[in-house]
Amino acid sequence: MRTGLLLTLLAVSCASPASHESGESVDLLISGGTVVTMDADFTVYDPGFVAVREDRIVALGPLADVSRYSAVRSLEVADTIVLPGLINGHQHAPMTLFRGLGSDLKLMDWLTRYILPAESKNVDRNFVFWGALLAATEMLESGTTTFADMYYFEEEVARAISTAGMRGILGQTIIGFPAPDYTTPEEALKGAEQFIVDWKDDPLVTPAVAPHSPYTCSREVLDACRELAEKHDVPLIIHLAETRDEVRQVEESTGFRPVTYLNEIGFLVDRLIAAHVIWAREEEIRMLQEHGVGVIHNPESNMKLASGTAPVPLLLEAGVDVGLGTDGAASNNNLDLLQEADTMAKLHKHSTGDPTVIPARVALVTATIGSARALDLEADLGSLEVGKKADLVVLGLGEASAVPVYDPYALVVYSLHGSAVETVIVNGRVVVEDGRILTVDREELWRQVERLRDKVIRSLEE
Amino acid sequence: MRTGLLLTLLAVSCASPASHESGESVDLLISGGTVVTMDADFTVYDPGFVAVREDRIVALGPLADVSRYSAVRSLEVADTIVLPGLINGHQHAPMTLFRGLGSDLKLMDWLTRYILPAESKNVDRNFVFWGALLAATEMLESGTTTFADMYYFEEEVARAISTAGMRGILGQTIIGFPAPDYTTPEEALKGAEQFIVDWKDDPLVTPAVAPHSPYTCSREVLDACRELAEKHDVPLIIHLAETRDEVRQVEESTGFRPVTYLNEIGFLVDRLIAAHVIWAREEEIRMLQEHGVGVIHNPESNMKLASGTAPVPLLLEAGVDVGLGTDGAASNNNLDLLQEADTMAKLHKHSTGDPTVIPARVALVTATIGSARALDLEADLGSLEVGKKADLVVLGLGEASAVPVYDPYALVVYSLHGSAVETVIVNGRVVVEDGRILTVDREELWRQVERLRDKVIRSLEE
Repeated sequence: MRTGLLLTLLAVSCASPASHESGESVDLLISGGTVVTMDADFTVYDPGFVAVREDRIVALGPLADVSRYSAVRSLEVADTIVLPGLINGHQHAPMTLFRGLGSDLKLMDWLTRYILPAESKNVDRNFVFWGALLAATEMLESGTTTFADMYYFEEEVARAISTAGMRGILGQTIIGFPAPDYTTPEEALKGAEQFIVDWKDDPLVTPAVAPHSPYTCSREVLDACRELAEKHDVPLIIHLAETRDEVRQVEESTGFRPVTYLNEIGFLVDRLIAAHVIWAREEEIRMLQEHGVGVIHNPESNMKLASGTAPVPLLLEAGVDVGLGTDGAASNNNLDLLQEADTMAKLHKHSTGDPTVIPARVALVTATIGSARALDLEADLGSLEVGKKADLVVLGLGEASAVPVYDPYALVVYSLHGSAVETVIVNGRVVVEDGRILTVDREELWRQVERLRDKVIRSLEE
Repeated sequence: MRTGLLLTLLAVSCASPASHESGESVDLLISGGTVVTMDADFTVYDPGFVAVREDRIVALGPLADVSRYSAVRSLEVADTIVLPGLINGHQHAPMTLFRGLGSDLKLMDWLTRYILPAESKNVDRNFVFWGALLAATEMLESGTTTFADMYYFEEEVARAISTAGMRGILGQTIIGFPAPDYTTPEEALKGAEQFIVDWKDDPLVTPAVAPHSPYTCSREVLDACRELAEKHDVPLIIHLAETRDEVRQVEESTGFRPVTYLNEIGFLVDRLIAAHVIWAREEEIRMLQEHGVGVIHNPESNMKLASGTAPVPLLLEAGVDVGLGTDGAASNNNLDLLQEADTMAKLHKHSTGDPTVIPARVALVTATIGSARALDLEADLGSLEVGKKADLVVLGLGEASAVPVYDPYALVVYSLHGSAVETVIVNGRVVVEDGRILTVDREELWRQVERLRDKVIRSLEE
């Protein structure tokens, strides 16, 4: 049972006239937990409350003030930690269906022996939908309410996460060779534009353009992607400076290192979200900062694939917006962003030899408001503040690793995993309760996942 | 709810005469999961069964053969992974009560500002008992069935884990300055001998002698510890070559690096369990191998405290028995050994730049039979084999991160955490069911933990 020992989670109707008269009316009150706001002052209300009307936070503060409000629905969450919804800045959601396929190999062996054949033989609309639904279920149940994605058939990812009720910046991949959805980058660009037009006004989905990388897209394709993103005012997502091989290849073909090359061709723009950025020199970090590029750090994937250590302390010192991502489940192998924050803190202490580097609070910043800034979503997301969207996560303290509590930041980052999540609210709607998603038929999902796994195994035996 | 979606866990009485006639009678049958034995051939029965009589495994194999047995109690665990109980090779169990106290500091700041004052003002018999009970609860609920400990008032740790029903090698600390339990090493040695005499024949507890380290114990104390362990034929536990500072101090005072120094004084013996061993040169690795010293690797603590990278690939190549530990919860900050195996694999891929180093299976070896070898327990523990003790863990596949399954080793190490644990059996006894401990009053434990935390906070404010 995941129900916290001390947690009482009650849906109480307070719609009597007396209670309406006694306070300002709101739709949802979350009250009694330690509210860790992640605002600019790192305000913590212990215990506190958050009041929600429609899709926005309309008030929050110490629990003593909760009596000013009366709610249609009240969640009493004593002895919990209330956080802003976590934001996973880099993902390939449908690849959850390849989780654990061909582990512990060199990157090119893994891609050519497993991932590329498995993708070419299996990735279609149906695969993408169910893979994205599994990813959305895993993310929501572990506290992530928003993610940035890059894959094929991205409209199916949009359909899946709409079903699940989570937010996404969904980047349609553009790549310089035949892909499962489009044979050429030109076709993919057309498809991306249609996807943007179809989904631009959705309350949860933000369509985006995602050229795969500087070594798999030509100069012309990169230009066209940037122009398409500018035309529709949507984000631009790319893999950048992930491996030494990429640096070598880009240097050989362009004469520049990857970040410098993108700077030279005018691709470093404010709307750009760059994943990895491991191999960036000091002057390249300045280029990223000057152009307001958001960088997404993926420590577990980088360690597992032995890609290197992103210079996160230097990026932060230079004022670059750094967010946190898990990368796809095929290379991580899960989407637990609290675990990723833990690894991030430990990796940089280890790499610098300094245990004071990336304290728990900074790691949690990176997973919340840091990711929001990197994705240009900080006006609406990333912290619990009046006027922001009501995306909240309630962590129970029922697991033995959750007690005692001396410091909520250290607890959340170093001791807990996503398994501590009890309740998740996205856009004012409760989508996870008692650690389980309310918006997805899990039994049907598990059946589809097993069926698709069997198909993948058969396809690789052919 | 932690109950796996596809898991049906039924206690069925099969004590009818007919069923007794139909097969060999056993006490407990676990049947239907993917049985990952961790034996020398890495046998996996998918699906399989394990039969237990009293405290031992008497049979295991493919599920088709289960009909040969009839059991008093039957656990049907379809769609789960069945593993040998995990073995945490290095711990300071009662320090769970300091979890998250003063994070992200340099080691000496952390010790002098937080841990040492908190220990001197709080650590007594009562503190050790409840801290060890919290640790035992956390370990059992995350799949660890045996651990090696080093702390004060170790007889209280013994009392706590006996209550919980788990196994421990419990090392009474001997240190060259006044400790919470004994003022001098001489008194501590006397206390350790009494502890050994009192607990030597316990079925779950193995008492041990634990000189803290080569830089906090004199030559005379180290000799006396080794002699005491030899006299009673019990294990000897020490911290060894953990930090650069230790290397410098030991070199200054003895003229030798830590491992070489212990070799010079005849302290490297088969019964020795050495935690950390980060700063060991090639010739020192040979010394450890020649004397059969067990080494316990603690990757998360080492990363968090920025101590360095233990040369695990070299230790393994040299044939040293390497086990896995979490270190105390004060420096980790949890006791989740599956998460530790994940970090171990990623750390060494990262450090060597080679993603093929420490594949998932090797990481799981280290957490099971590797730890058993390092602790000289491999005759009874560490793998599922006929004749070994019945210590088993059942992992559910109900979390979204648990599917699909292509490779059980990759799944367990890279995707799951201890939160996947459904059922735990120690010495033939079911001690965890539905992810929650049966042998401990969790409500009372949580109350005691909160009370002791308040006391720690007050003591540091004085």
